[in-house]
Amino acid sequence: MALCETASVAVGIDIGGQSSKIGIVDREGHILGRSVLPADGDTNPDDFVAKLAEAVRALIASCAPDSPIAGVGVGAPNANFYTGCISHAPNLPWANGKTVPFAQMLSWKLDDVPVTITNDANAAAMGEMKYGVAKDLKHFIEITLGTGVGSGVVVDGKILYGSDGFAGELGHSCVEMDGRQCGCGNRGCLEAYASATGVARTAREWLDSSDEPSSLRQLTKITSKDVAEAAAVGDALALRVFDYTGTILGTKLADFVHFSAPQAIVLFGGLARAGELIYAPTIKAMNARLLPIWKDKVKLLFSSLPESDAAILGASALVWA
Amino acid sequence: MALCETASVAVGIDIGGQSSKIGIVDREGHILGRSVLPADGDTNPDDFVAKLAEAVRALIASCAPDSPIAGVGVGAPNANFYTGCISHAPNLPWANGKTVPFAQMLSWKLDDVPVTITNDANAAAMGEMKYGVAKDLKHFIEITLGTGVGSGVVVDGKILYGSDGFAGELGHSCVEMDGRQCGCGNRGCLEAYASATGVARTAREWLDSSDEPSSLRQLTKITSKDVAEAAAVGDALALRVFDYTGTILGTKLADFVHFSAPQAIVLFGGLARAGELIYAPTIKAMNARLLPIWKDKVKLLFSSLPESDAAILGASALVWA
Repeated sequence: MALCETASVAVGIDIGGQSSKIGIVDREGHILGRSVLPADGDTNPDDFVAKLAEAVRALIASCAPDSPIAGVGVGAPNANFYTGCISHAPNLPWANGKTVPFAQMLSWKLDDVPVTITNDANAAAMGEMKYGVAKDLKHFIEITLGTGVGSGVVVDGKILYGSDGFAGELGHSCVEMDGRQCGCGNRGCLEAYASATGVARTAREWLDSSDEPSSLRQLTKITSKDVAEAAAVGDALALRVFDYTGTILGTKLADFVHFSAPQAIVLFGGLARAGELIYAPTIKAMNARLLPIWKDKVKLLFSSLPESDAAILGASALVWA
Repeated sequence: MALCETASVAVGIDIGGQSSKIGIVDREGHILGRSVLPADGDTNPDDFVAKLAEAVRALIASCAPDSPIAGVGVGAPNANFYTGCISHAPNLPWANGKTVPFAQMLSWKLDDVPVTITNDANAAAMGEMKYGVAKDLKHFIEITLGTGVGSGVVVDGKILYGSDGFAGELGHSCVEMDGRQCGCGNRGCLEAYASATGVARTAREWLDSSDEPSSLRQLTKITSKDVAEAAAVGDALALRVFDYTGTILGTKLADFVHFSAPQAIVLFGGLARAGELIYAPTIKAMNARLLPIWKDKVKLLFSSLPESDAAILGASALVWA
């Protein structure tokens, strides 16, 4: 009997505005090593890609020197799976206002190892399907409730990319035609209400427009975590903020179910940490709006991936897809 | 050289509350023969299926006696592609309040010829893709604006059926949380506004709540066609009804684009006949809400299938899919 060949591993990279996280991940989702490349304001994509490739090589050398590299998966804002490009990403100075053929560039710098990229929300959905709570699901929608609202739609075990690779921008669904200003330039998008930022904004607006007592009044800057902590100890205004947010979120989730008939919706990201506070009003509103064929049948789940690892795991899952 | 074999044909059936339409269709979409089976109130599915099978046999005998039958495609309300069942269809007395294994039953009655069923809106999308304006498209959404609002979502050349076969119920997306009562039991669904019925309802509500002069006042029963005719000759209220309806429709279409990133949206059915009256406000509202990556890029088209043939063509297209 021949000796086992060294099992191949994947590189997962999560590119963000503050830093890029790199991980070496085996097929079972064990992270064999991690490193972080802080953003240092590069405006030239060549410079950034060269530093990233160097960091990848260093990490491989330190924790998986003998393992064949099956490929590199990258999750990044405005990354397009079809084209391999990152376009007009305002938080990445090297990709702001331009289109960067990122996958191709990184592949060249890494001796032509295959590089696959997708946007961060799709990467989260990939990770959930490969290693998380969606392991046994072929139809689900992952909703990332962070600074914004991202989404990855999975249909029949595959990310829905649509005609151009950009499908699944559910955070910009319309909640209210003349509603709150959203970062996208439009008004009334889901993201303006059901993100961590949206929760803080609702609390601030309500505090400013009333004299209702609330422990949140003593804070100069309010985060969604503050609102969750206040709600957890019974602050009435904070509790209503979650009720309001969940009602909006659940209503839109019902729309999404009507579109792609998933088995479950998976919540991920900062606001999901609020647990029951966001779950209860969301599932109630979702079921209230679902057509009878789906009422009480579509699960609302929380991601089971550790938040610090999810992005790396999700990116690495692209390699094994 | 051998003689050409007779080309096979498909049977397309459109089942409705008033009647069922049957057509024999060749691969190129030519309808070789048609017949209509009026509904006669059957409450037993066996009775209905027996009559339908007999009508199919008679039509084949009269117009394609020597052609091999490649299969039967059926479009029907609440028909499920995965299970072959028609469930709880209120307008079909033989399928009201129960689940009928329709495809299997009809296949048995027709000597085991394969029978494929789907709901009527999906059938319309199939027909559009095979024979209509979506011939060259792999990603589009067909919206049927009739008594209700139906939809068929096409992703990568295939109908999106989701986990259970019921995906694509876009008519029940939420326009306004506490809005108009919808036939589904909920409030504020798109169907309550942007259907032919919705247009007539808007006109009636506006006439009842104001003294504004309008040629529609002389009518006791208003249809969407009446509103379109009044708008066409400059009736201000009727024109505003279309503006209002199109604004709502376009806003929701943008949501749908954000979901599946189609190349086009195709409008079909009664309200689509209003042409420019519905097109202008709809495309304006859609583009106003689309993220920059899609603004002015997603086409809004009208179905190119003759309305009387669309259902039969769509159903028959299931056979060649």
